[in-house]
Amino acid sequence: MNADSIRKLFDEVRSGKLTPDEAVARLRHLPFEDLGFAKVDHHRALRAGMPEVIFGQNKTPAQVAGIFTRLAKHGGNVLATRADEKQFAAVRKKIRSAEYDPLARTITLFRDKKNYGKGTIAIVSAGTSDIPVAEEAVVTAELMGNKVEHYYDVGVAGIHRLLANREALTKSRVVIVCAGMEGALPSVVGGLVGVPVIAVPTSVGYGASFKGIAALLGMLNSCASNVSVVNIDNGFGAGYVASLINRLP
Amino acid sequence: MNADSIRKLFDEVRSGKLTPDEAVARLRHLPFEDLGFAKVDHHRALRAGMPEVIFGQNKTPAQVAGIFTRLAKHGGNVLATRADEKQFAAVRKKIRSAEYDPLARTITLFRDKKNYGKGTIAIVSAGTSDIPVAEEAVVTAELMGNKVEHYYDVGVAGIHRLLANREALTKSRVVIVCAGMEGALPSVVGGLVGVPVIAVPTSVGYGASFKGIAALLGMLNSCASNVSVVNIDNGFGAGYVASLINRLP
Amino acid sequence: MNADSIRKLFDEVRSGKLTPDEAVARLRHLPFEDLGFAKVDHHRALRAGMPEVIFGQNKTPAQVAGIFTRLAKHGGNVLATRADEKQFAAVRKKIRSAEYDPLARTITLFRDKKNYGKGTIAIVSAGTSDIPVAEEAVVTAELMGNKVEHYYDVGVAGIHRLLANREALTKSRVVIVCAGMEGALPSVVGGLVGVPVIAVPTSVGYGASFKGIAALLGMLNSCASNVSVVNIDNGFGAGYVASLINRLP
Amino acid sequence: MNADSIRKLFDEVRSGKLTPDEAVARLRHLPFEDLGFAKVDHHRALRAGMPEVIFGQNKTPAQVAGIFTRLAKHGGNVLATRADEKQFAAVRKKIRSAEYDPLARTITLFRDKKNYGKGTIAIVSAGTSDIPVAEEAVVTAELMGNKVEHYYDVGVAGIHRLLANREALTKSRVVIVCAGMEGALPSVVGGLVGVPVIAVPTSVGYGASFKGIAALLGMLNSCASNVSVVNIDNGFGAGYVASLINRLP
Amino acid sequence: MNADSIRKLFDEVRSGKLTPDEAVARLRHLPFEDLGFAKVDHHRALRAGMPEVIFGQNKTPAQVAGIFTRLAKHGGNVLATRADEKQFAAVRKKIRSAEYDPLARTITLFRDKKNYGKGTIAIVSAGTSDIPVAEEAVVTAELMGNKVEHYYDVGVAGIHRLLANREALTKSRVVIVCAGMEGALPSVVGGLVGVPVIAVPTSVGYGASFKGIAALLGMLNSCASNVSVVNIDNGFGAGYVASLINRLP
Amino acid sequence: MNADSIRKLFDEVRSGKLTPDEAVARLRHLPFEDLGFAKVDHHRALRAGMPEVIFGQNKTPAQVAGIFTRLAKHGGNVLATRADEKQFAAVRKKIRSAEYDPLARTITLFRDKKNYGKGTIAIVSAGTSDIPVAEEAVVTAELMGNKVEHYYDVGVAGIHRLLANREALTKSRVVIVCAGMEGALPSVVGGLVGVPVIAVPTSVGYGASFKGIAALLGMLNSCASNVSVVNIDNGFGAGYVASLINRLP
Amino acid sequence: MNADSIRKLFDEVRSGKLTPDEAVARLRHLPFEDLGFAKVDHHRALRAGMPEVIFGQNKTPAQVAGIFTRLAKHGGNVLATRADEKQFAAVRKKIRSAEYDPLARTITLFRDKKNYGKGTIAIVSAGTSDIPVAEEAVVTAELMGNKVEHYYDVGVAGIHRLLANREALTKSRVVIVCAGMEGALPSVVGGLVGVPVIAVPTSVGYGASFKGIAALLGMLNSCASNVSVVNIDNGFGAGYVASLINRLP
Amino acid sequence: MNADSIRKLFDEVRSGKLTPDEAVARLRHLPFEDLGFAKVDHHRALRAGMPEVIFGQNKTPAQVAGIFTRLAKHGGNVLATRADEKQFAAVRKKIRSAEYDPLARTITLFRDKKNYGKGTIAIVSAGTSDIPVAEEAVVTAELMGNKVEHYYDVGVAGIHRLLANREALTKSRVVIVCAGMEGALPSVVGGLVGVPVIAVPTSVGYGASFKGIAALLGMLNSCASNVSVVNIDNGFGAGYVASLINRLP
Repeated sequence: MNADSIRKLFDEVRSGKLTPDEAVARLRHLPFEDLGFAKVDHHRALRAGMPEVIFGQNKTPAQVAGIFTRLAKHGGNVLATRADEKQFAAVRKKIRSAEYDPLARTITLFRDKKNYGKGTIAIVSAGTSDIPVAEEAVVTAELMGNKVEHYYDVGVAGIHRLLANREALTKSRVVIVCAGMEGALPSVVGGLVGVPVIAVPTSVGYGASFKGIAALLGMLNSCASNVSVVNIDNGFGAGYVASLINRLP
Repeated sequence: MNADSIRKLFDEVRSGKLTPDEAVARLRHLPFEDLGFAKVDHHRALRAGMPEVIFGQNKTPAQVAGIFTRLAKHGGNVLATRADEKQFAAVRKKIRSAEYDPLARTITLFRDKKNYGKGTIAIVSAGTSDIPVAEEAVVTAELMGNKVEHYYDVGVAGIHRLLANREALTKSRVVIVCAGMEGALPSVVGGLVGVPVIAVPTSVGYGASFKGIAALLGMLNSCASNVSVVNIDNGFGAGYVASLINRLP
Repeated sequence: MNADSIRKLFDEVRSGKLTPDEAVARLRHLPFEDLGFAKVDHHRALRAGMPEVIFGQNKTPAQVAGIFTRLAKHGGNVLATRADEKQFAAVRKKIRSAEYDPLARTITLFRDKKNYGKGTIAIVSAGTSDIPVAEEAVVTAELMGNKVEHYYDVGVAGIHRLLANREALTKSRVVIVCAGMEGALPSVVGGLVGVPVIAVPTSVGYGASFKGIAALLGMLNSCASNVSVVNIDNGFGAGYVASLINRLP
Repeated sequence: MNADSIRKLFDEVRSGKLTPDEAVARLRHLPFEDLGFAKVDHHRALRAGMPEVIFGQNKTPAQVAGIFTRLAKHGGNVLATRADEKQFAAVRKKIRSAEYDPLARTITLFRDKKNYGKGTIAIVSAGTSDIPVAEEAVVTAELMGNKVEHYYDVGVAGIHRLLANREALTKSRVVIVCAGMEGALPSVVGGLVGVPVIAVPTSVGYGASFKGIAALLGMLNSCASNVSVVNIDNGFGAGYVASLINRLP
Repeated sequence: MNADSIRKLFDEVRSGKLTPDEAVARLRHLPFEDLGFAKVDHHRALRAGMPEVIFGQNKTPAQVAGIFTRLAKHGGNVLATRADEKQFAAVRKKIRSAEYDPLARTITLFRDKKNYGKGTIAIVSAGTSDIPVAEEAVVTAELMGNKVEHYYDVGVAGIHRLLANREALTKSRVVIVCAGMEGALPSVVGGLVGVPVIAVPTSVGYGASFKGIAALLGMLNSCASNVSVVNIDNGFGAGYVASLINRLP
Repeated sequence: MNADSIRKLFDEVRSGKLTPDEAVARLRHLPFEDLGFAKVDHHRALRAGMPEVIFGQNKTPAQVAGIFTRLAKHGGNVLATRADEKQFAAVRKKIRSAEYDPLARTITLFRDKKNYGKGTIAIVSAGTSDIPVAEEAVVTAELMGNKVEHYYDVGVAGIHRLLANREALTKSRVVIVCAGMEGALPSVVGGLVGVPVIAVPTSVGYGASFKGIAALLGMLNSCASNVSVVNIDNGFGAGYVASLINRLP
Repeated sequence: MNADSIRKLFDEVRSGKLTPDEAVARLRHLPFEDLGFAKVDHHRALRAGMPEVIFGQNKTPAQVAGIFTRLAKHGGNVLATRADEKQFAAVRKKIRSAEYDPLARTITLFRDKKNYGKGTIAIVSAGTSDIPVAEEAVVTAELMGNKVEHYYDVGVAGIHRLLANREALTKSRVVIVCAGMEGALPSVVGGLVGVPVIAVPTSVGYGASFKGIAALLGMLNSCASNVSVVNIDNGFGAGYVASLINRLP
Repeated sequence: MNADSIRKLFDEVRSGKLTPDEAVARLRHLPFEDLGFAKVDHHRALRAGMPEVIFGQNKTPAQVAGIFTRLAKHGGNVLATRADEKQFAAVRKKIRSAEYDPLARTITLFRDKKNYGKGTIAIVSAGTSDIPVAEEAVVTAELMGNKVEHYYDVGVAGIHRLLANREALTKSRVVIVCAGMEGALPSVVGGLVGVPVIAVPTSVGYGASFKGIAALLGMLNSCASNVSVVNIDNGFGAGYVASLINRLP
């Protein structure tokens, strides 16, 4: 333990083994991590059900399984995003209770099911093609201990589908909106609710959607003031930010 | 007159002055414009109230006044777009009945007020800053003999403002929608009405709106199938296309 | 039925079960879709031969077949765009009369062959590589009950090929122009005809064509005033907009 | 009052003037805004000190003064952003207690000074040139009833300046980070705190900063999971979102 | 034959069957292609050894073989660019003397070997990776009847390699320069020679070369005044333009 | 004179003052310019009426006048492009016969009026706004000793205007085409003529023309094979390249 | 002094005033800057003549003068970049020996003229318009205690101008190359010398130079391996990096 | 030998075989490479352990093996970058001591292991996904005779990981920093150390990282003055520049 090395330093000063000047000099060269400041801080930020997260993309099955196993020893929930079936097979061999969601492309170990949130996170998607990104947000938010409700395929070209759910949306504590193509849905949702809206542009579309740029620009320029934006297809990030908001005491 | 030169050719054939072969050879080298084909065709396309149009930007007051005066001799309506007050002053000196609309930045000579359209053109704007572009469309459509109704400041972040006018919108024969920022309004309007929607991205916005690119991309990627798009700030083009549609027999 | 719940509300008011104030309060919370407004409106917009449309891209054969079958029950035409042979095989198993067009990449069920249009839709392509996009427009327009004529490989570098068809083009009620590379054809066609032109940029080209951006920008900046634009490779959208225009009474 | 028209409808049903079926039919055509749903909802979202906001850019002094005066009648705080001194002079003539902040470019009427937030909003800027954007966030957050602390000129190239304030930052309930150039600060701050971070790219920089694009992209790609982003230079939006978060019960 | 229909028209005028006025009216509606103007013109432009060209990309082997065979009947040279081995196999079955160049990816039928050029076309490439594009230019130029010399791997980072060939370059009548990456070579070559330089940006490079954009922009901004540019990887176009220049009488 | 220093070296070798080895060593360190190779070569490239050129932009009147005067001493024609009236006034004070063309923004000293070209350079512009760029090409080509003919305002939306001049265009030895907006004109002209076409995109347009990018991309992707392109608004470059082509023996 | 506060902590532990545990706890909350680590480190990095730098752009004359005066008290050299004459006037009032270079736009106080470099920094510019950026690098490097030599107007289109200086360039310890337009010069220089080359793209150019993007991309894609790049127009950064390299022991 | 041909020229002058004038004329036409200037210079730049480098991408195994074998004859180290296992197998057949690093994708022949550097090159990577690029830099620097230390996975979102290595970093002579996503790490490292920092943007990331553009822009706009940048994923270039710096005497 690192706080120990600091304490040992002070012990040596007290016992006269080191002069204060020598202690100052040595402190100057101790790596910060050894001080344990950041790590403790980091742990505190992630306490209470916040899962450790593995970004699966470009990792071998063995790497994902290795990290997953190590994280699983901490006792909390574990989440791997952008994971494929091969990575899951490797994890499964070591941890039988791990689960794979092919839509969200997540591997999860869901042990701590306590609700840490104050309210509900609503997750909205414009079209059916946006659902994988939305589901990544769902899984992230649930693993982080939130109650989640989702409203899929309520895009702006059939505005009545959205309006039919307005009442429910306005009762959420934070709303995530996933949309590709023109990315207009967060603006409309933002105008309907009085809570923070996290917009997730998706790469759904073709031609001048430029793999999500059109949606991203649309969301950044939203005429609704309660909208902030995460990266294209970043369902995890949206779920993470929404969880932090929902867990604020 | 060019048709005359053709007729003269035939006359010379009839009178034996030219053999048919010689006539064919000569015809081969007659410039097409001298045949008058295109011009007649062009006149037909612009008949019945369709104004001749001057693009005022980068023209001197003298140039605008000169062209305006020449067009005014044809007897129909005359329109100059992207015009400023100095250009208008120059026009006014020559044609007392010309009028200037500072919002639409148009100079007009509105003589033929007959209604050539079959129905109403609805012109919708998202915010108050989009109104100048919308007004350019209004003036264009009116000068081309259409009945116009406008619905301003009905952007998507306060969707009830738009829904309050749905009934009226669905009765239009064609709808023009002007919006900057995220350019989401055409998608919502497109979902509400069953007629063609002409979307006009405006350069209204800041930062990542990139002077209208965000709105343009949003409109090109509209999830509503009845939307087509014109250039950024091109209220004139939208008014022109809408008029052609409204005048179809 | 939703209108029923409204009627029930009024019944309860008439019978004295609810005061008018209580009814107002309750109405305030009824989801809009339950009112049935939008749905009825939507149906009306799609009546009379307008096919329901499935966007096939990124859908499994089972999904496409499932939706296709459900839509086929409505009795009208059914259209799936961006479909592949596997999706068609799945549809074919359930609906024997469905047909696949490998060029347009469409699956169609063509039952209602009534002509709902007022005139002819002309569909023009610049090169042979643009034909798949043009054919998507052809199939869409035909399924929506229009008479279609097409003019392929009439690009601007051999202008005589286009001029040879000018007479026919000018008789159309609306023109669709598909072009990749520099996207110049809509401007030239726009100058030849007096009707609305729907321009479809295609991703045909290489290098600085940037998968259709060059053509898209060319069309948005067209010097012909009667041109509006849809997304890159969006033949369906062009066919849809053109049909709406052609069916205007 | 619109609820009145609904009540009148029910009255007529009760009195037998209208049958329930006739009432349903009539309701179907009532504009939504007349129902007053959205407006009431809107008012509720903005209650309790949330100021009405005027976007000053491209408005005349008379327009700003006119809207400002009308909003001032509601009794709450009033905020105009992107305002200049001329606009302020026009406002001042009508409302003596209005104030102008030349750095934030805001006109404010600050009457309701109650603290509606649960904690503190920390507002961080990378350089001195980012301060105007940060100050717009400060003014917005303060007018919306929040306690605000700011930490300016703590950019990443002198990381000790930021670390010196880490303790204070970790105690905030939400953090706003404004940065231009490479936009790296939100990532570092995001790693230090366990609360939501709202990143505001600023247009500060030159050359390949492309007026804030470099910073915007940097923030969207932040390796810290608790970061969401608003438009370039959108201090108001960040202050607004942060306020909503801070006021969550 | 089209000229026949015109002659027939004149015959009918001479025989009194048609009045000149009737003839003018009928002429007005004859399609231009029927006049045969353009076709004759087109043939003239392509006379004297200029090969017909097939763009192989996205064509089936059967299509390429079909067109190739038809063109081969005209007796001149035939060129297919962007062709693969399968297309060549299909062509070979029908025309035994056709040849394939795997580097240039061209199928050629080289029958007319007369030299139509006035001088030599020099073709320069910056690196070995640019050679396929350069070879497409070589094949094009040779089939069009030019004497070609090439200088490969003489990029600017080892300027002595280029300078060693300066004497030879200055004797060319036109120079083609192919370069990827920074695209600097045309500027240096342009400064060394006094003849037209055709620059071909190639997609060689990685990262910020953006598949040839860096080279393209470099060439468009060349500080040498005698440089003009064709599309990325467009070796054919460069060979074609250079041939036209070299054949000017 | 530099050739003198080389000669002196050889003289010293001949007289025994230097050994051949010492001469080799010294030669190794002589700056190339002192050898005079390039300069002589440069002069040859610019012989026979080719003007020296000053790029006026960002230069002070004194600088332009200074360089202009020095160049004037060589006896040939002198050209300054992108020049303003103040620069001209400064030049005029020193050289009475210098002339200013406010449209082309050129200062010229036109003394050598011999025709060095083999044929005519045709300069075509799409719209009236493109004329300044076209005129820069005209002035450049004329000063370089060419016969120039221009065809203005013959854009593609009124194709008959271009076709009316086809006969004349096909007689030119090289054609320059200036166009903004969609930049379609070079493709059409390229299809009409059999000689090299130099395309000049202009920054004329608005919105999605992006100051000439739309036209530039259009031209680079031209479906006509005889088109090469210079920088946006670079009328000088086009005139220069065309002159080189026209002067080829 | 901050090391003092640490020492005081150890003193209190030794004297029994604090237990080691209490000391650990307190240390955990000491801001890092108070530890003095970074500051001491920062000072060390900037020792020995390295000037403090003020970025003048967007600062008021009073601000620049205020910071300049404070820095001047440290005794070393002081540099303000991107400064204008008004800022200089304000500085001059307080510090008579400050100097202004209108070309480099720098205000300098040059007191420590010791040479801290090991060799010479060569600063090369492609054209005369690049000289202001090059001069900013010159001033920076000289103030940081380096011997500087510059070679201006040696762009690649007249390669002999550069080759004439090759001998001198190869003797430099590090080379800075400033170029706009196509940005080709660093590649050529990089090939001539065997030392690090710092490339500075400048915003010189027009049209498709896109204010320095063309040059920037060219430099990033340099085929010479010894080239690294700084921001557009960032002469200061290049001078700074070159100085660090030249001062390496 | 080329210097021989020069000497022979002088010999012929001395012996009277050539007059000095004839010698000057002949010299004028000798290709520069024949003089051997550049080659000698090139060899000098690459002396002392600097490996010859083969860019493997797009080369066949036979080509790589061929060049590798030829270079191996020179006796020094040989490096092939962007190489795959097939290329290695081909090399291995000819040179048994060649080695392949699958992470860095390099083939090396490491014979000269002398340390030519003055200090240590530190190579830092932000995340584990950036390691392949970092390893390419490691291999390059080691083959060029440098002592290398690396610090991986020390990205800015967990700043303590970086700070823990600060002491070591500040002792390096030059630092290479590889980072994808937001590319913030070079700015932070640049602020911690007083030596040159070479930043390498990597293509690691997704969505709005645009394959490394976000990181590239972030690095170009670094607020740390000691940062210069190489191309995306160009670990080789960074290792090369760092080696040159480290070997400066």
